[in-house]
Amino acid sequence: MSSIDLNSDLGESFGAWKIGDDKAMLDIVSSANVACGFHAGDPAGILKTLFAAKERNVAVGAHVGYRDLAGFGRRNMDPSSEELVGDVIYQIGALQGLAKAAGTTVTYVKPHGALYNTIAFDTRQAADVISAIRQINPDLILVALAGSPLIAQARAEGLTVVSEAFADRAYTSKGELVSRREKGSVLHDPEQVAERMLQLVRTGSITSIDGVGTKVDAQSICVHGDSPDAVAIAKAVRQKLEHAGLAIRAFSGRQ
Amino acid sequence: MSSIDLNSDLGESFGAWKIGDDKAMLDIVSSANVACGFHAGDPAGILKTLFAAKERNVAVGAHVGYRDLAGFGRRNMDPSSEELVGDVIYQIGALQGLAKAAGTTVTYVKPHGALYNTIAFDTRQAADVISAIRQINPDLILVALAGSPLIAQARAEGLTVVSEAFADRAYTSKGELVSRREKGSVLHDPEQVAERMLQLVRTGSITSIDGVGTKVDAQSICVHGDSPDAVAIAKAVRQKLEHAGLAIRAFSGRQ
Amino acid sequence: MSSIDLNSDLGESFGAWKIGDDKAMLDIVSSANVACGFHAGDPAGILKTLFAAKERNVAVGAHVGYRDLAGFGRRNMDPSSEELVGDVIYQIGALQGLAKAAGTTVTYVKPHGALYNTIAFDTRQAADVISAIRQINPDLILVALAGSPLIAQARAEGLTVVSEAFADRAYTSKGELVSRREKGSVLHDPEQVAERMLQLVRTGSITSIDGVGTKVDAQSICVHGDSPDAVAIAKAVRQKLEHAGLAIRAFSGRQ
Amino acid sequence: MSSIDLNSDLGESFGAWKIGDDKAMLDIVSSANVACGFHAGDPAGILKTLFAAKERNVAVGAHVGYRDLAGFGRRNMDPSSEELVGDVIYQIGALQGLAKAAGTTVTYVKPHGALYNTIAFDTRQAADVISAIRQINPDLILVALAGSPLIAQARAEGLTVVSEAFADRAYTSKGELVSRREKGSVLHDPEQVAERMLQLVRTGSITSIDGVGTKVDAQSICVHGDSPDAVAIAKAVRQKLEHAGLAIRAFSGRQ
Repeated sequence: MSSIDLNSDLGESFGAWKIGDDKAMLDIVSSANVACGFHAGDPAGILKTLFAAKERNVAVGAHVGYRDLAGFGRRNMDPSSEELVGDVIYQIGALQGLAKAAGTTVTYVKPHGALYNTIAFDTRQAADVISAIRQINPDLILVALAGSPLIAQARAEGLTVVSEAFADRAYTSKGELVSRREKGSVLHDPEQVAERMLQLVRTGSITSIDGVGTKVDAQSICVHGDSPDAVAIAKAVRQKLEHAGLAIRAFSGRQ
Repeated sequence: MSSIDLNSDLGESFGAWKIGDDKAMLDIVSSANVACGFHAGDPAGILKTLFAAKERNVAVGAHVGYRDLAGFGRRNMDPSSEELVGDVIYQIGALQGLAKAAGTTVTYVKPHGALYNTIAFDTRQAADVISAIRQINPDLILVALAGSPLIAQARAEGLTVVSEAFADRAYTSKGELVSRREKGSVLHDPEQVAERMLQLVRTGSITSIDGVGTKVDAQSICVHGDSPDAVAIAKAVRQKLEHAGLAIRAFSGRQ
Repeated sequence: MSSIDLNSDLGESFGAWKIGDDKAMLDIVSSANVACGFHAGDPAGILKTLFAAKERNVAVGAHVGYRDLAGFGRRNMDPSSEELVGDVIYQIGALQGLAKAAGTTVTYVKPHGALYNTIAFDTRQAADVISAIRQINPDLILVALAGSPLIAQARAEGLTVVSEAFADRAYTSKGELVSRREKGSVLHDPEQVAERMLQLVRTGSITSIDGVGTKVDAQSICVHGDSPDAVAIAKAVRQKLEHAGLAIRAFSGRQ
Repeated sequence: MSSIDLNSDLGESFGAWKIGDDKAMLDIVSSANVACGFHAGDPAGILKTLFAAKERNVAVGAHVGYRDLAGFGRRNMDPSSEELVGDVIYQIGALQGLAKAAGTTVTYVKPHGALYNTIAFDTRQAADVISAIRQINPDLILVALAGSPLIAQARAEGLTVVSEAFADRAYTSKGELVSRREKGSVLHDPEQVAERMLQLVRTGSITSIDGVGTKVDAQSICVHGDSPDAVAIAKAVRQKLEHAGLAIRAFSGRQ
């Protein structure tokens, strides 16, 4: 690979409540997963994030989630297929409308939180999300967890899928994320994280928590921006990759 | 006039709560003002209404409202311009997304409840709604209260505006709605309502509450569908107009 | 038994949306499970229901649910223990406040929908609900599904528990509810339902879906009121029991 | 006066979104205005704030607001009397329930944001809030803007009223707050703010924005805690008053 995408979750403030420094992150990433109002994000705040993404030529994705503001979309839920299809289309459409106002377009979909984790493995809810995307715009790219069954399922339905790795997370020797409940699952050292991501891009594999190289097939790397430490990690990843001669470029062809 | 539009507020159920008989009304009207989720409407329910509108070739408008489910968008609020612009774009975009899934398109915007009443006269909030429409799609037609200052304001900003009359409401001799707090403000007799609407379409005027003919410039007639009686009135209006040789046709050119 | 309790879910309207005929049901039941605003119910509407319950000397219980208006509390969720404990205390407290205004008191708690079904068997969420009740008022009685493990769990923690049967539901030969997905799970004939409930009160057993008598230990019978047919069933149950000389009396000692 | 109350708005985080450092502020103030879930605050977070208030023997008040999470209760609304009475009782009751769990009690009510400002002068909404308080607990003290007509209105209805001054706000020569839109309306220098509050407590008057002493009748001083600067101001006020020999003591008799 001569280029790689960096993506981050943005637009997650709500009314008086602020999360993250969207402008700082938009200077680092090539793709912005923008909240759509169900787990986070109010229209006026989302619009500001979209204008800032447009200014920096950062690609925009719909960060759709469960309808659960109080739980920030992190709690499992079991909406019916009718409900989930409707909720996903609604959120993508709302973001498309705001993106139009900001002079940009939505090019991909990355589900958020519990929905992201659920559809990685739950084929019923995965089918609903896939169906929603196909109904509103089958050209939207789906971002999915590297190694998850969702990837094949979505491709079989005709979607373009990009798989992603998480910069600050440890992996098992099977190429799966180490559960957040286990010690060492989350990495905090910017230099270490950056070095691992360079390894990933160059070799397609990553050193697992038990010390062996494990294959992780990822076209995008997710970095976080919800704390000053997280922003520092994201910056370190970008610098390390660029210094190694790699371009940071959106998978969607924008930027 | 050889044709007139009939419009009605639809898609206003929410989750387990049902309001109105959307299919019955879609057999009567030519334009459906579809709730967008802020004052009423959940995505799955809205989608069903949109499919039913598409089947009947009924035009679809965004019935945008204040963010106030508990008050059904009927309570006055004073959002900032940033908030109101964002909220209106978001709602229109969400409905556009669902309309795409249903194989139809949003061709107009009719604000709901307190927002409708406010922007008829409040130029600041009116400017915000106009700005929102222009940012997402300047070809969207705005439906406004016949006789209100909003009409000229929106036209000055380049929007196409359609003015509407209310079938079941009494008018003053100045062509304004009689306040709901006054006796006789709401009409209940289907035959009387239908006869008045025929008079309106044929002559451009209506008999006021004090018995004089008053000019009401309306290209669309709003009928309600939230009770069996309301549906009966809407049916009577349609039949009376059709029997008089008038076509019921959407102002937006659909149907 | 010389008396039995009849309970029903009430106060479930929300803003402009109406469900059920609370006054009709309050003329039939001895205990009102009143919505607390998370799955249904707005404060002004809940207050009206509480005044009507007070007038008829009907006991009041807190019908607490998941925070899910769009799903009417019928969708499974996995709140953390902190969240669930807080949400249950909050809802009970809110209802206690409204009950005070209406001149009555909350004497029991009956969880709603998905929360009801979940805690019948899920000991973690059950423990959270039990803890919440103990923290706000350990004298509150918990209403639980007849035959469920929740009953012993709550009693072990010191709560008084009342178990309930569902008037319009079929039972398996093990005394469990037949799943709603199976044919014959919901009964519609008022006379049949009433006869079964008389059998239950007199004998402590009920004829299962496969025709054998099965023990169901219930001190309360849940009747529904969300449709005219449901109200008719509830009325039939009350009349049948009263004609047989049984008193309809709240388990909580009120009425 | 040998003592004065310091109050602050707390419990205003919501789900994943954090505002303010409640524990730091609870070390400074004698009365905590705790959010009740309508403009801010989720039950689990509110409960933590209440436990922290209990530990420090800080008095607890219900910081009731309009039902407007997206606007943080800062937008004017016009709920009906039925709605407003219900909403206020509901919020107070919910907080009473959580306070019970935390081993403390709600002793006063201080409306928030737009509701606070509205009822200072709007007698209809003021009457609704007063009625709500009387219905749930007439012994609850109402905290009102010093100099506002609300004070007499609430006292005429039998409520105990405490009036408050704002530490970081400039006053006109009539003893009213200088509008936030005017230059110099908000003070930022901790020493200056502390000195002014000492003057207020000692003399009952404050130097107005045009340099004259103006009477401000206040039994409580509101300090903010939503930024590190605000916490520094609050600390400075407390220290200045204590060094002058004044006790910081809740008006409600707790602490």
